Amino acid sequence: METNDGASRLMTMKQIYNKVEAVVLANGEYPTHPLPSEVLAKAPYVVCCDGAADEYIRRGNIPDAIIGDGDSLSKENMLRYGHLLHRINDQETNDQTKAVNFLLVQGKQRIAILGATGKREDHTLGNISLLIDYMRAGADVRTYTDYSVIIPCRDVCSFACRPKQQISIINFTSRDLHAEGLAYPLSDFTNWWQGTLNECSRTEFTIKAQGEYLVIINY
Amino acid sequence: METNDGASRLMTMKQIYNKVEAVVLANGEYPTHPLPSEVLAKAPYVVCCDGAADEYIRRGNIPDAIIGDGDSLSKENMLRYGHLLHRINDQETNDQTKAVNFLLVQGKQRIAILGATGKREDHTLGNISLLIDYMRAGADVRTYTDYSVIIPCRDVCSFACRPKQQISIINFTSRDLHAEGLAYPLSDFTNWWQGTLNECSRTEFTIKAQGEYLVIINY
Repeated sequence: METNDGASRLMTMKQIYNKVEAVVLANGEYPTHPLPSEVLAKAPYVVCCDGAADEYIRRGNIPDAIIGDGDSLSKENMLRYGHLLHRINDQETNDQTKAVNFLLVQGKQRIAILGATGKREDHTLGNISLLIDYMRAGADVRTYTDYSVIIPCRDVCSFACRPKQQISIINFTSRDLHAEGLAYPLSDFTNWWQGTLNECSRTEFTIKAQGEYLVIINY
Repeated sequence: METNDGASRLMTMKQIYNKVEAVVLANGEYPTHPLPSEVLAKAPYVVCCDGAADEYIRRGNIPDAIIGDGDSLSKENMLRYGHLLHRINDQETNDQTKAVNFLLVQGKQRIAILGATGKREDHTLGNISLLIDYMRAGADVRTYTDYSVIIPCRDVCSFACRPKQQISIINFTSRDLHAEGLAYPLSDFTNWWQGTLNECSRTEFTIKAQGEYLVIINY
């Protein structure tokens, strides 16, 4: 199948995350599902957002970098790992974005974000919606949670799936939204819920649109 | 202070939830924070969304109604409480919406939704965004989570707050968005994250806009 970014999208989830260059571990719920846990364990480079470093270190790891103002880092870890802390002074954005920008500057574009959801709902909404901005900045980024992988997309994208796998599409700037391989038809959704609770009807699906949207693939 | 719906908005959180006529207990994370727990304990009428009834019953309660297809209700509860189950056949919407509509038909408009977030992110996004639709249908509805109260608003709304309390504004259809009593200025946000992480500068705040938006007040 032809897509506008070639065959690279049509990979299994495992193939996708094996190509990750760096992980951002944000300060939401620490991953417990086997898939994000494996992404974290295999990551060649890990940037922790401030307090997330505490739990990562407590589990026997050492981050490659810590982003934030150090406010929510324990005193002990501040003493031992303060040299890994990069303070980025920007009131206009959050630690997740600072971490992604820190990686993009180093040329690391294939990024997996973990721990981005599951606590405060405004953090969850903010962190998910920022994926669109990271895509605009050139990142090949996705968020792995304990329930799903969330992928920012533009125009035409295809993914491998299992029949009956639960899929949601959240529209941002797209029009002419339609799909092949999903059970229910898409339209130019104006509210988030309208694209939720779709499901795969085959072993791959393709979204065609003009513009940007998020794909949420539940495991 | 004048607002377009009078003084009723300018209540403390406790005054607000004491006026709730009914609670919808959705099938996300069961509430553990004292505030939603108290809303649930004091509710004069409780509708559970399918499987949420199991945990509610396990804790010694009996729902007034159960909405859903009964698929995720335990066999034991199906036998004992099947007479409370209202099967509403509508593939176009979810159990939370069926429960809200069930209440509106009975004339119960002051509704608190609990358990709407915290598991699958597509459910969280869908359930939060549906608040806008419920407001359009005439409900005076808000969602209480373990972190925040989420309130659908139109045009001008005022709320009591504590200085430094964390507030987020998610724009849906609004233009000319601005605020009094918040630390950072609003604009006509086009992405969700842009209105997050604001904070109260006084003991009340007012949002002025033309159109619809969500206010997230963190406890």
